[in-house]
Amino acid sequence: MSIVRVAAFSISLDGFGTGEPQTLEEPFGHAGQRLHDWLFPPETGGETRVRYGLDGALSMASYDDGTVGAEIMGRRKYWPYPGPWTDESWKGWWGDNPPFHTPVFVMTHHPHESIEMEGGTTFHFTDGTPAEVLAKAREAAGDKDVRIGGGPTIVREFLKAGLVDHLHLVVAPIVLGRGESLWEGLEGIESQFDISATSSDRPGFVHQFWQRRVA
Amino acid sequence: MSIVRVAAFSISLDGFGTGEPQTLEEPFGHAGQRLHDWLFPPETGGETRVRYGLDGALSMASYDDGTVGAEIMGRRKYWPYPGPWTDESWKGWWGDNPPFHTPVFVMTHHPHESIEMEGGTTFHFTDGTPAEVLAKAREAAGDKDVRIGGGPTIVREFLKAGLVDHLHLVVAPIVLGRGESLWEGLEGIESQFDISATSSDRPGFVHQFWQRRVA
Repeated sequence: MSIVRVAAFSISLDGFGTGEPQTLEEPFGHAGQRLHDWLFPPETGGETRVRYGLDGALSMASYDDGTVGAEIMGRRKYWPYPGPWTDESWKGWWGDNPPFHTPVFVMTHHPHESIEMEGGTTFHFTDGTPAEVLAKAREAAGDKDVRIGGGPTIVREFLKAGLVDHLHLVVAPIVLGRGESLWEGLEGIESQFDISATSSDRPGFVHQFWQRRVA
Repeated sequence: MSIVRVAAFSISLDGFGTGEPQTLEEPFGHAGQRLHDWLFPPETGGETRVRYGLDGALSMASYDDGTVGAEIMGRRKYWPYPGPWTDESWKGWWGDNPPFHTPVFVMTHHPHESIEMEGGTTFHFTDGTPAEVLAKAREAAGDKDVRIGGGPTIVREFLKAGLVDHLHLVVAPIVLGRGESLWEGLEGIESQFDISATSSDRPGFVHQFWQRRVA
């Protein structure tokens, strides 16, 4: 059955999904890459996703297991600045062959032509409520899952709207102090889910799995 | 060697160590007992500390292993309301024989006579900086450890002052949304510690161990 899921979404101990300010040089602001050290181990250069162990398996399950048919992301995951588009040549952070290999729906109030990339990724730019954008993504995904790719604002909005079936969170042992909170306005959201947790292979990091309760 | 430690201190996913408002009826406010479900399992009535498994061992290590010689707690852990004392007959939440069995230093700006309880617990009421109160507690503890008992304000102040050697945190799978944050003002505090994590026996709960790095 096709589900809506958040995969490998990392937050700090104080609940921030990104630091600040977000820029082209530092897409996660003062957080740098630290929230994702479990996924891109700094001791291997910080550019290769982990392949082995529990973390490797969860990385594969998040990106490479063939179950995802479409992704939804926020404008600021695609391009760090708010407001009208200022660089029409920008095609995301991920090079010519992005790791999505599916249609990607970028939520934005500012119209933009679709961009077809190598390897099956096409960026579409769309306005609308979470439910409206999800309807488009579901249609594109067919029988496969829809991944809510972040950032924190987007994950929060989809959680708030009750649209997430499964959430794989990673809690990093970092106190960011500031940035964009995943939890703001979500008091009590846990009551909709069964939650389990297990430690990452990386000391101090924790994987959490939120499975929506069957009504 | 005698160390200063925080033991079995529970926080929500969004970093709150208690809900609000704190009252005699609900000492943790809207959080109720949920932050401590791992320690006082609701399925056994919610009044008995867990005795078995990993959680049982960590409960014992927090309270009953004989290594603690003095406790420091905040005024609001002892009595939930701010301001001058209004009930001189109050002797804490813990009955005639509190679980501390050591001197307990309650940090308050409002003077109060010491109270000797059964079983070795004596409540002392003291003003002063964290370092000043710690000096008193260390003297009382002799060769044993000093436990920083909470609430969140006190743990935060001792962390900020660099006075905590070991911190055992428990992260509960709850989004409280409001209350008293452990993390406020502690940006980057993790860099002083080596941190590991392991899942609790209770689904979704996680134990974190913060060990101060040797300089």
